[in-house]
Amino acid sequence: MQTHLREILRCILDSYRNTGGINNIDGLNLPSKRAMESVCEELLQILFPGFLDAEPVHSSDMERVIGYRLGAIADRLKHEICRALRTDNPDCSENRAEEITLEFLATIPEVRDLLRTDVQAAYEGDPAARSFEEIILAYPCVEAIAIQRLAHRLYLKEVPLIPRMMTEWAHARTGIDIHAGASLGSHFFIDHGTGVVIGETSRIGSRVKLYHGVTLGAKSFAKDDEGHILKGGKRHPDVGDDVTIYPGSTVLGGETVIGGGTTLGGNVFLMHSVPPNSLVYYEETQIKVVPKRRDRSADGENM
Amino acid sequence: MQTHLREILRCILDSYRNTGGINNIDGLNLPSKRAMESVCEELLQILFPGFLDAEPVHSSDMERVIGYRLGAIADRLKHEICRALRTDNPDCSENRAEEITLEFLATIPEVRDLLRTDVQAAYEGDPAARSFEEIILAYPCVEAIAIQRLAHRLYLKEVPLIPRMMTEWAHARTGIDIHAGASLGSHFFIDHGTGVVIGETSRIGSRVKLYHGVTLGAKSFAKDDEGHILKGGKRHPDVGDDVTIYPGSTVLGGETVIGGGTTLGGNVFLMHSVPPNSLVYYEETQIKVVPKRRDRSADGENM
Amino acid sequence: MQTHLREILRCILDSYRNTGGINNIDGLNLPSKRAMESVCEELLQILFPGFLDAEPVHSSDMERVIGYRLGAIADRLKHEICRALRTDNPDCSENRAEEITLEFLATIPEVRDLLRTDVQAAYEGDPAARSFEEIILAYPCVEAIAIQRLAHRLYLKEVPLIPRMMTEWAHARTGIDIHAGASLGSHFFIDHGTGVVIGETSRIGSRVKLYHGVTLGAKSFAKDDEGHILKGGKRHPDVGDDVTIYPGSTVLGGETVIGGGTTLGGNVFLMHSVPPNSLVYYEETQIKVVPKRRDRSADGENM
Repeated sequence: MQTHLREILRCILDSYRNTGGINNIDGLNLPSKRAMESVCEELLQILFPGFLDAEPVHSSDMERVIGYRLGAIADRLKHEICRALRTDNPDCSENRAEEITLEFLATIPEVRDLLRTDVQAAYEGDPAARSFEEIILAYPCVEAIAIQRLAHRLYLKEVPLIPRMMTEWAHARTGIDIHAGASLGSHFFIDHGTGVVIGETSRIGSRVKLYHGVTLGAKSFAKDDEGHILKGGKRHPDVGDDVTIYPGSTVLGGETVIGGGTTLGGNVFLMHSVPPNSLVYYEETQIKVVPKRRDRSADGENM
Repeated sequence: MQTHLREILRCILDSYRNTGGINNIDGLNLPSKRAMESVCEELLQILFPGFLDAEPVHSSDMERVIGYRLGAIADRLKHEICRALRTDNPDCSENRAEEITLEFLATIPEVRDLLRTDVQAAYEGDPAARSFEEIILAYPCVEAIAIQRLAHRLYLKEVPLIPRMMTEWAHARTGIDIHAGASLGSHFFIDHGTGVVIGETSRIGSRVKLYHGVTLGAKSFAKDDEGHILKGGKRHPDVGDDVTIYPGSTVLGGETVIGGGTTLGGNVFLMHSVPPNSLVYYEETQIKVVPKRRDRSADGENM
Repeated sequence: MQTHLREILRCILDSYRNTGGINNIDGLNLPSKRAMESVCEELLQILFPGFLDAEPVHSSDMERVIGYRLGAIADRLKHEICRALRTDNPDCSENRAEEITLEFLATIPEVRDLLRTDVQAAYEGDPAARSFEEIILAYPCVEAIAIQRLAHRLYLKEVPLIPRMMTEWAHARTGIDIHAGASLGSHFFIDHGTGVVIGETSRIGSRVKLYHGVTLGAKSFAKDDEGHILKGGKRHPDVGDDVTIYPGSTVLGGETVIGGGTTLGGNVFLMHSVPPNSLVYYEETQIKVVPKRRDRSADGENM
């Protein structure tokens, strides 16, 4: 076995030399996936004090506990942000990373104010929700929206890699994929959530409610003269205030605007704007309901 | 850095005082997410002995191994159930928590009988399934259905928070979101599973087969005079025996009944009942198939 | 409490004796889920050196680090493959497991060549992708496709259980469910990914791009004279080169062929072949857009 393994090792080392682009050898210190995972977990603990700890936090201990946790996050995050900045500019100073880290942490109170409205929207929007506690402990949208609201602030400061790593951490845990670039209004509720995709340049108003499987995506990509996709540009829809979108619907296009107060039915595929206060749906007559044939043959059942 | 962090800490502590509803400070001991995660993992090990352990269980060791595990689960679960009960009634006694824990654990054999039928339904319903072992080791529906069947029993005993925490644990791992309130018949199979949502008041018959992305949801919410959603009430469909629902279909409404023996095609959006033994689908003629234009402009490809 | 627990234990032990099929008592050593999880993680570290480690790998250390890691994987994988082979043939020799393990590990360089094309396809196919680093660190499709490409090689060697355990590990983390049997061309990109299902007998060409929620599934199952589903057989579609499929579309059937160069719109449900260079979509006229009624009654909002 050892001889064969040595030969395989040689081929793998050759592959590292010959197949470029997917190696990080003698390369930059990239932000660590594992470090960012624990930063995300600890940020959630600061956002919702006492909910995700083994024990509730006592007010007498508060300053000590939160102060310690904040210091630990600041150190690690500064380290990872510095690594990320240097992938764009190898000469980036530690000071710049520290500055961004502090500006970012200072937004926690305003993020908490928004999250308060999201939890309230979940409570008011879901007849199955029994208490705020249940929502914070068990609704995946809370985690996905909280992490995106934080990541969005690092995205606006043009930190590479880290905002997307944060939202992907939440995506893997919740099935909700909100790009760090998307802009979200207050009182945002996503019920169930699995399969929701919200693209980078989406803008979402206040009091919007999405069900699982809703996509706000791009419909066309501008290309340069050589046929390469152009990066950037407004590609995803705008959704007005007080819009509800039922499960499995897809809205595409950077110029598509869903007017405020509109309700979209489920499984709708939409590539143009709709005026405010619309109801959008497929006609039920398009569904056929017929009796099953009795002579089903032995070789299978057709859908 | 330290000076700035102290200032940020002060603002966060202010936020804890001023933004209520999302803090648990000087509050109740809530059930712990982490404790419930390990309870769920150990319950699965008891349900499927020898499958999820590093080594198979030997019959000579069985009484000792399972006895030890059962005792450990009982202690921890009683502790978490007690915390949960006290969110509703701060004076709830430990005895009540113990009683519920014991009644719950006593249902394990009957849950196993049902799971036996679920594994068999997966084996018979999926041509790709090679053995019962493969299903228990690698099919996400086994985990999601097992945890829901257990959580449902705590839901019926009106334990707050914990049933939903259990089903969300399974949801995060499998993408299958079955509310702890839903009532499931025997021989239940969910293939692939990602994106399945089954609402709180759904009732599902025996020998039902769902594919991924199927929703059994609510279509309208009753509101009180002040416009607040009313909690509770039958909001989700009933699905008869021997029903198959293909991927991505959505069935809404508390009065919607899918008659026994019916097959629903994929991507169907249904808000009314269908009689037994129906075939429900979209007409294929509604799909347009046209040649692509050759003169695609350089500025992008329209969907 | 102890008396009751003893009684519950007795009932559970009875259940192990009476409810067969879901126990592994005095049984075979099955492959361990946990061991396969860490094998998958370490395989990813070998495929993308320096990306998933805490620190980048230095070339001077390379031979030592990768050699050590490769040896550790080989030992553990051989052990698990041996357990898996013995579920089919209890007399299977350790030598056979070693042989398969070495043949498998020797395919790593060719798998890396393919993954290089996948990362490039993601970069060229997504305007939001800023760098190869971002794709490797944060795109779920990279993990799902990498693990499937490896699992497929064990599937071709007819190793039971393990290929499916590997793809389910990736499915749980990414929401992307590609059966180990599916055959994938180069330059394969899946954007977002949650809810994608690719069946066992699918064959996918080169430069194919799928969005989340796309299903390549089976439409009918052949049954034997006793009504049991027949295992095996070509059940899933073929997808030609340069095909793009938008979110939520479902293509079913083993004889269904999507011709090369075709684009499928979103939410399309297709059960027949389409010629090369087609555009397939639902007509927009089928969507109704109407103003909401002003006289919404107090008892709820219909969809």
